[in-house]
Amino acid sequence: MAHVNEHYQKLKAGYLFPEIGRRVRAFAAANPDAKLIRLGIGDVTEPLAPAIVAAMHAAVDELAHRETFKGYGPEQGHDFLLEAIREGDYASRGIHVDKDEIFVSDGSKCDVGNIQELFDTKAVIAVTDPVYPVYVDSNLMAGRSLVYLPTTPANGFFPTPPEASVDVVYLCSPNNPTGAVMTRDQLAQWVAWARARDVLIVFDAAYEAYVADASLPRSIYEIEGARECAIELRSFSKRAGFTGVRCAFMVVPKTLTGSLPGGERASLHAMWARRHSTKFNGASYVVQRAAAAVYAPDGLAQTRAQIAFYMENARLLREGLGQAGLTIHGGVHAPYLWLETPGGQGSWDFFDRLLREAHLVGTPGAGFGPSGEGCFRLSAFNSRDNVEEAIRRVQQLKL
Amino acid sequence: MAHVNEHYQKLKAGYLFPEIGRRVRAFAAANPDAKLIRLGIGDVTEPLAPAIVAAMHAAVDELAHRETFKGYGPEQGHDFLLEAIREGDYASRGIHVDKDEIFVSDGSKCDVGNIQELFDTKAVIAVTDPVYPVYVDSNLMAGRSLVYLPTTPANGFFPTPPEASVDVVYLCSPNNPTGAVMTRDQLAQWVAWARARDVLIVFDAAYEAYVADASLPRSIYEIEGARECAIELRSFSKRAGFTGVRCAFMVVPKTLTGSLPGGERASLHAMWARRHSTKFNGASYVVQRAAAAVYAPDGLAQTRAQIAFYMENARLLREGLGQAGLTIHGGVHAPYLWLETPGGQGSWDFFDRLLREAHLVGTPGAGFGPSGEGCFRLSAFNSRDNVEEAIRRVQQLKL
Repeated sequence: MAHVNEHYQKLKAGYLFPEIGRRVRAFAAANPDAKLIRLGIGDVTEPLAPAIVAAMHAAVDELAHRETFKGYGPEQGHDFLLEAIREGDYASRGIHVDKDEIFVSDGSKCDVGNIQELFDTKAVIAVTDPVYPVYVDSNLMAGRSLVYLPTTPANGFFPTPPEASVDVVYLCSPNNPTGAVMTRDQLAQWVAWARARDVLIVFDAAYEAYVADASLPRSIYEIEGARECAIELRSFSKRAGFTGVRCAFMVVPKTLTGSLPGGERASLHAMWARRHSTKFNGASYVVQRAAAAVYAPDGLAQTRAQIAFYMENARLLREGLGQAGLTIHGGVHAPYLWLETPGGQGSWDFFDRLLREAHLVGTPGAGFGPSGEGCFRLSAFNSRDNVEEAIRRVQQLKL
Repeated sequence: MAHVNEHYQKLKAGYLFPEIGRRVRAFAAANPDAKLIRLGIGDVTEPLAPAIVAAMHAAVDELAHRETFKGYGPEQGHDFLLEAIREGDYASRGIHVDKDEIFVSDGSKCDVGNIQELFDTKAVIAVTDPVYPVYVDSNLMAGRSLVYLPTTPANGFFPTPPEASVDVVYLCSPNNPTGAVMTRDQLAQWVAWARARDVLIVFDAAYEAYVADASLPRSIYEIEGARECAIELRSFSKRAGFTGVRCAFMVVPKTLTGSLPGGERASLHAMWARRHSTKFNGASYVVQRAAAAVYAPDGLAQTRAQIAFYMENARLLREGLGQAGLTIHGGVHAPYLWLETPGGQGSWDFFDRLLREAHLVGTPGAGFGPSGEGCFRLSAFNSRDNVEEAIRRVQQLKL
């Protein structure tokens, strides 16, 4: 008898973005002339930077000749990329991360989905609410229970560490969906709490490149003691336009341990290395060359210019929608703006209204968790023309 | 308290290929002048076919311009690739597979590693012995127990279906590591057994492109009733030299169901679609364009020529090592040869001897399971010069 995983039955019917996709397709089919502007899923719109394009062409040419052909690479990632990451993201900022603590993957969504395999099935998982749905769904699929920590305008979008006994907490800063960013003091408070209680922090820094203020932490390892309690996730998706290229990485310090039933400690680095080499065969060679190009001087300059472009979009949206009377959070150190829906309107209702009346696609806050109700996410990823047009359309609505 | 997954402790110390890598590195460090020939891990050596290279360059150029830039694609895969697969691998051979039953991924190792998430943690898993280690390790990591079905020269390398009660069985044909291929009758016997007992078959067809005899099944869906009991995995790794490019796919028929605790049936297609869209963000666009090029007339002709080249290597190895007195299985419809070690020597001993005396790297049969002891895997993936040199070296050994 083929017995299947019963926990999938506990999941809500649709992952958020497919549900948005369904509503948008239905609207577009009924209104073929509507010029939709998509500020929903948070997909980048700028083309790849020239330095990245050149690196990819060169890599494809390597694969075209026997002498330079590359087959299976090391599961953790090619040395040229691991070294670029170690130096570019950590050593050059005074942060200690060893090369063999970095695991390159084909995307942060995969890393987020997979990391929970290291936790006990009875481990209790704490997440913020609203939250990136993959933290929740990947743990529900494995049968774990979750503790939700509401983050609202009232607590500045970052909760204090909970009193409840938990095994793991997911933190995301700059935050998706709220666009809030943790201060060094806030993050230090979480690290101290995690160390005191032996909690593992999964720190999702997918948007760290959007932090403009040098006093704000971009890596959790800027905080003393984090190597003893935290895994860090990074992505090239929003930092270098890799949403279709697919590359990310995770840092698992060798100093990190978890608890086995008998009370012994297990190395999370050894466990993840085993998971990675058993179930993954390395990211595409061409993609790894593309990622390494992000760290070269021209790649760095070009990708920083893209981020500045998106952040100017964010600034225009903040200003323009503020003038339309909306209360806006985020969008300063993150590509996401988190709006309060006018008059406390339901966020799916506001979604439908924006779609219907302004032909704008955003993301309903309720899709990220119950405490996201009454809020709405817009992304800054679009052309300048579309951003300006979106602002005009919202300003014309009677909000 | 960060409680971690205790099941990782049950895994053997190293995944097979990293262990081989360690031994080879140690030998190479001590013998820097030895010219090693690697017939071990089964990595391709021919460069990408010109049609694939052209498709990848064109795809990179699309990403370089705003008008043609591609960000997130559908998690299941781009339509152009799904359609190429459906038509090229199935419809054109009279096999019914719907486009939305195909799930493109970044590699079969990932698919094999991930599919077990759909099974109940108490499900009993049957695998052949010897076996591709990922079937075993991915299930051990999730705490499942396994039933091993010995496959040896005595049973022609394919067991009959077991009497024991199992939930899932993994079958691989053409087989890794033995190089054996199932006949239509053998496969039909498994399908009938699986349907009668409600067992799910995970059919790994990663090497189907190496089947030269049209009377042998390349897809399990050539067998009546397989849509009710089988998932099929395919890969571009060995078929088109994608070991460093990374692309594969899995077919999950919509007619496939498994059992929930209350006895209700759950759609495995719906479960896998949910898993795929929650934890995966699609394969790289450039990689998907590369895979689609495999189905175009020039790509097909070029990749078939590569397979013919490797199979001529296999023929030479069979002939030459046979002349050296070795008993050889496989290597006819598969890129793997499965040797019986001379005099019943231990397979790791034979590994060390071949490495030391002939500077040849193969894979010890025991690494694939206890019944692989006394056997040894060689792959046909190498240059003609290296294959001929390898044959000469073995012929000079006193076996």
